[in-house]
Amino acid sequence: MIASLVNGIPGNQASILDRGLQFGDGLFETLAIVEGQPCLWDSHVARLAASCARLGIPMPDTGVLKNEARELIGGQQQAVLKIILTRGCSERGYASADAGATRILSLFSWDGPAHTPLRVAVLSRRLGLNPSLAGLKHLNRLEQVMARRELPADAGEGVMLDIEGRLAEGIAANIFLQQADRLLTPRLDECGVAGVVRQLIMDTGQDMDMPVEETRLYLQDLLNADALYFSSSLLGIRRVYAIIGQDWQPGLETHPVMEAARRRVLAP
Amino acid sequence: MIASLVNGIPGNQASILDRGLQFGDGLFETLAIVEGQPCLWDSHVARLAASCARLGIPMPDTGVLKNEARELIGGQQQAVLKIILTRGCSERGYASADAGATRILSLFSWDGPAHTPLRVAVLSRRLGLNPSLAGLKHLNRLEQVMARRELPADAGEGVMLDIEGRLAEGIAANIFLQQADRLLTPRLDECGVAGVVRQLIMDTGQDMDMPVEETRLYLQDLLNADALYFSSSLLGIRRVYAIIGQDWQPGLETHPVMEAARRRVLAP
Repeated sequence: MIASLVNGIPGNQASILDRGLQFGDGLFETLAIVEGQPCLWDSHVARLAASCARLGIPMPDTGVLKNEARELIGGQQQAVLKIILTRGCSERGYASADAGATRILSLFSWDGPAHTPLRVAVLSRRLGLNPSLAGLKHLNRLEQVMARRELPADAGEGVMLDIEGRLAEGIAANIFLQQADRLLTPRLDECGVAGVVRQLIMDTGQDMDMPVEETRLYLQDLLNADALYFSSSLLGIRRVYAIIGQDWQPGLETHPVMEAARRRVLAP
Repeated sequence: MIASLVNGIPGNQASILDRGLQFGDGLFETLAIVEGQPCLWDSHVARLAASCARLGIPMPDTGVLKNEARELIGGQQQAVLKIILTRGCSERGYASADAGATRILSLFSWDGPAHTPLRVAVLSRRLGLNPSLAGLKHLNRLEQVMARRELPADAGEGVMLDIEGRLAEGIAANIFLQQADRLLTPRLDECGVAGVVRQLIMDTGQDMDMPVEETRLYLQDLLNADALYFSSSLLGIRRVYAIIGQDWQPGLETHPVMEAARRRVLAP
């Protein structure tokens, strides 16, 4: 970690009574810093605000967040900024004292965006179903931790299915399938994180009159796809060149929506 | 909070890089301190060890835990001891550095055990299904936080169903139904926390040759029950006298298994 601010004050400690630690009662955002600027800042802040509203966590002033981000980034040209927002501190028990939110901004070194295709593994750990929290980038991430533990060393990301066997997402990324001219992505109404880059891809599809279809997808759809893409704020939009243990090979050129969206991601 | 130890050292701060805060990557135990002694210590430690094994978190030496608990309890006769165990600190990302666990022991004031029956509310928030984490008392507790937010002020606990409409548990307690001579409790293979007092009740049932049945139960079973019980380390074993908004009244005497188990809970 390069530096961090806790409620605006330089430091790397939080109260053990913080509800983020006690219950995972909070949200986070992970932003790429490229050429000294946070990428997709407005989208990240908009998602954070919408998620705060859904959980009843007070959203900090966006000007304050922006100033703290600028202070932390300083002269760093390339880095990762993580914003954690929790429901603040309270005494023991699930009831909250509504003491406001805790803001934790931290900056990490980063090799910067890569554009090489990914080798991925289909993981055995299945995501649970949780409609009331689905889509949110909340701090309850034990499923992802356990999934990451089984990712082979030679895989760049993992494919996660849900407990019904439906395609869900990567460990820290969303998944898109290309079938001929169509782009498909799993619905996130029962599990998964609604990624900022995922939304950008969908918006790009709308703009280009080639809408991405949100639908139920299965492992067989993955293996039948002409091309696969993983998206996240740090990965950007990456094609897959191999699925470990599967006789799958990508065909086709990169979809024009993905080409167009790629130019809008990881750009300062 | 009366006092706390972080990895054995007095203090109330943890690193913002602790995986407990970053991901909810950890476990917890909540113990009643009665007459200066932790209740059901061995059961709590055994559950913690079993849960650590399931998640791959290194279990601390139980002698160290016991010494730290003793140090923290000091001369307090009546209190709540919370033990949080996380996978330690790591840099950004789900991969862990296997840096060992973080132990956070904290002591809170407590009014002590109550024996009065509870008034409960059936909550609208449904628990998600997550077989791979079911039963664990892990730190991903956003569902309970959100459930607690809708608990009416005049209710002592809530009844939570899962997304399939099956009876699951309380917000911070397990549920038992009595039908004539039978005791029934929801299976916890898809969601819920396998409580230490729940296990004690089941062991007591075995000992008395009146085994508790773990089964699928629905709201209608609750409303048809002759008696309802909530169990937890702090509640002990409590009967329910009213379900808010429901025309339900308890009948029957307290089940002999519950009477026997009650004498073993909240006893130093």
